[in-house]
Amino acid sequence: MGRWEPDARGRLAKAALELYGERGYEQTTVAEIAKRAGLTERTFFRHYADKREVLFAGAVELENLFVAAVTDAPGSEAPLDVVARGLYAAAEMFTDRREFACRRQAVIMGNAELRERELIKLASLSAALADTLRRRGVAESTASLAAEAGVAVFKIAFERWIAAGEERTLAELTRESLDELRAVTSAG
Amino acid sequence: MGRWEPDARGRLAKAALELYGERGYEQTTVAEIAKRAGLTERTFFRHYADKREVLFAGAVELENLFVAAVTDAPGSEAPLDVVARGLYAAAEMFTDRREFACRRQAVIMGNAELRERELIKLASLSAALADTLRRRGVAESTASLAAEAGVAVFKIAFERWIAAGEERTLAELTRESLDELRAVTSAG
Repeated sequence: MGRWEPDARGRLAKAALELYGERGYEQTTVAEIAKRAGLTERTFFRHYADKREVLFAGAVELENLFVAAVTDAPGSEAPLDVVARGLYAAAEMFTDRREFACRRQAVIMGNAELRERELIKLASLSAALADTLRRRGVAESTASLAAEAGVAVFKIAFERWIAAGEERTLAELTRESLDELRAVTSAG
Repeated sequence: MGRWEPDARGRLAKAALELYGERGYEQTTVAEIAKRAGLTERTFFRHYADKREVLFAGAVELENLFVAAVTDAPGSEAPLDVVARGLYAAAEMFTDRREFACRRQAVIMGNAELRERELIKLASLSAALADTLRRRGVAESTASLAAEAGVAVFKIAFERWIAAGEERTLAELTRESLDELRAVTSAG
């Protein structure tokens, strides 16, 4: 099984994102990623199923974080406040990952298949959130609406966070987007 | 070019949905759809690029309706009220299409590629709505949030409308979902 490589997973992810940016996602091979990271292909496949998974491995972690935060929220809280707990847990997860997130976004936006995969990731997150809310006793359609609204806030805050020149934290931008959602839906 | 076939397009769509339901989307060929409709393959391809397009031809119409309703709304209206005009225009478009919509949904849900296509359709609708709001002078992130919230309401009202036993109109369910969205985001 070869010797233990300190943070092989992180080195592979960093190498992959560099190469995707330099020569394009389609043109990059697993062999090149492993070489850039100073590791073997065998080690790559111990950590990732394929080169696409490097970009989506965080999705499971994100969904688990969201679901755990929503599950653990006090029973008395309103659905959107409960969802907000998931959003802030996610914001914390990304604290030190802005550079990775920016590079990743550029790769995703440049490839139709990856954009579709990203949409599926967000739809899956919304479904998991709605399920978790229902298990807390929130009514069917309220659960779906709160989950969809929460994912919309996540998406918009995230896009703003990785925009060039943005200096606020993801948590700050999440709070701002939540406030804006409340303003949008209360006006008129 | 063959003689003119009254409502060939509608007959082809009906035949396609029947066959997708009976023998599965993957197993159905364009030749079979044309035969069931009593038309030629050549006629099929004058109306649809392929068998998938039968399911998504309405997406352009839907997006155009949304955008037109939002564009024509009075300048003084709040963004979500403007989006609601798009939702009611869409509800009207679907008035006589519930049976088609139910059959279509069953086909979409049974096929991963079609589910992805459906997500892309809704993401495209959201982006078009946000663009239209921005052109009306609505601020960047407010436009995105109002558009995402509107598409979430559309999705949820639509799912409820095509559920077995539902007797309310799509317009009624849209109003109810909008009210629920306002309730969800104002609580707490």
